[in-house]
Amino acid sequence: MIRVSVIGSGNVAQHLIRALLKAADTELVQVFSRNPEAIRPLMVTDKTVSEYRLLKAVDVIIIAVSDNAIKMVSEQIPLKDQLVVHTSGSVAMEALQKNRSGVFYPLQTFSKTKALSFESVPICLETRHAEDMTILENLAKSLSAAIYRVDSNQRRGLHVAAVFVSNFVNHMYQLGYDICNDNNLPFDILKPLIQETADKVMLLSPEEAQTGPARRNDTQTINAHLSFLTVENQREIYKLLTKSIIDNGKKL
Amino acid sequence: MIRVSVIGSGNVAQHLIRALLKAADTELVQVFSRNPEAIRPLMVTDKTVSEYRLLKAVDVIIIAVSDNAIKMVSEQIPLKDQLVVHTSGSVAMEALQKNRSGVFYPLQTFSKTKALSFESVPICLETRHAEDMTILENLAKSLSAAIYRVDSNQRRGLHVAAVFVSNFVNHMYQLGYDICNDNNLPFDILKPLIQETADKVMLLSPEEAQTGPARRNDTQTINAHLSFLTVENQREIYKLLTKSIIDNGKKL
Repeated sequence: MIRVSVIGSGNVAQHLIRALLKAADTELVQVFSRNPEAIRPLMVTDKTVSEYRLLKAVDVIIIAVSDNAIKMVSEQIPLKDQLVVHTSGSVAMEALQKNRSGVFYPLQTFSKTKALSFESVPICLETRHAEDMTILENLAKSLSAAIYRVDSNQRRGLHVAAVFVSNFVNHMYQLGYDICNDNNLPFDILKPLIQETADKVMLLSPEEAQTGPARRNDTQTINAHLSFLTVENQREIYKLLTKSIIDNGKKL
Repeated sequence: MIRVSVIGSGNVAQHLIRALLKAADTELVQVFSRNPEAIRPLMVTDKTVSEYRLLKAVDVIIIAVSDNAIKMVSEQIPLKDQLVVHTSGSVAMEALQKNRSGVFYPLQTFSKTKALSFESVPICLETRHAEDMTILENLAKSLSAAIYRVDSNQRRGLHVAAVFVSNFVNHMYQLGYDICNDNNLPFDILKPLIQETADKVMLLSPEEAQTGPARRNDTQTINAHLSFLTVENQREIYKLLTKSIIDNGKKL
């Protein structure tokens, strides 16, 4: 049985608490929140504390707060020799003011309004001391089937890659939405294409999956699209990404 | 019973032929191909012709060839009063040199190496004569549950939108792949995130689904990402899309 406490009540904290409550061989001991109202729906009121001095020694304390609060929160934990980890993709492990520190980074986009199965969320682990890796691995295995050891430098790259394949991808959806809107078309018409584009890259490499006028270097269609687009921002993005796809094709 | 023939043997033609063979109340009468070898696996040898003069009058002839061949192919069809449609997102209906013309545009990304259920593919219809719309609608209904009437101008917009949400999205996957590769991380680690990002926009608007440093205007993380990125092309794309997300947030 691994004993875990969570500090935080935001998006990641809430998804994590829900998953920990269901996990086998894992006991959620305490939830620290300065805003107990936010986590009332999780039914953990009996475990909730709002003062650092009430935190108990456990196997792992997970700090799931915003990036710029991680260091400060870690300084407030009054327990010596306590393994403390954070959940951030972009904060160095060294930000934790603890001897036994580590990172427990679930690589996923979490929304308050959409449930999610934690089992398929890749969990990226790092520890200062090799002995603590076993504890984190056992904890991660109770939540997910996808566990990776990722050092701080790799994690920086991974976080940037995640911005490309998630935040920037969603922004492409936004631009598609805007263009549909401007042409009196429902966004729904694009949804099967969005789904299939994601499905394809589960089986094929992005290289093999690439289609479209830029991939074919079809300048006639590219120019027709550029004459159609009148919003300057959309034109700039169209040009830069088309050039990038064409250049990428040349490298092969 | 609707009687249909298909001209072409490429990607779209093959997916269409497979779907038509399975469709209720629809008879695939002929397949015209100058390259019968390409469609041998479809088992339509008995229906295959390679000379335009052998084409029979049917309810609809679907031209599923590359954009720049559509006009020429339509000129070769020796049948008068024949309804002829093409499947392109970017070619005007007027390219068809026929009185009874139309467009039957399946909005999807088709790969030879990945099977696909046609039932969820949106089919965008346009006809020169209103009477022909009923024929196309009946045909489309035998293949898919998602039928839209889309005029030529809307279709131009739709094709551009499709480039954003599919071709450009796949290129974002490519950049994520490259960054993983450069950091000795398997691309598999990004796949659940890619899947969830697509799944989210089925339920939420792209606006509601947007997360990440640009959305939060988190300049510290943005600058850390820019110092991490050394490939000039990746930096340019990161900057332009970050700016676009920030500007989009300001409009709200």
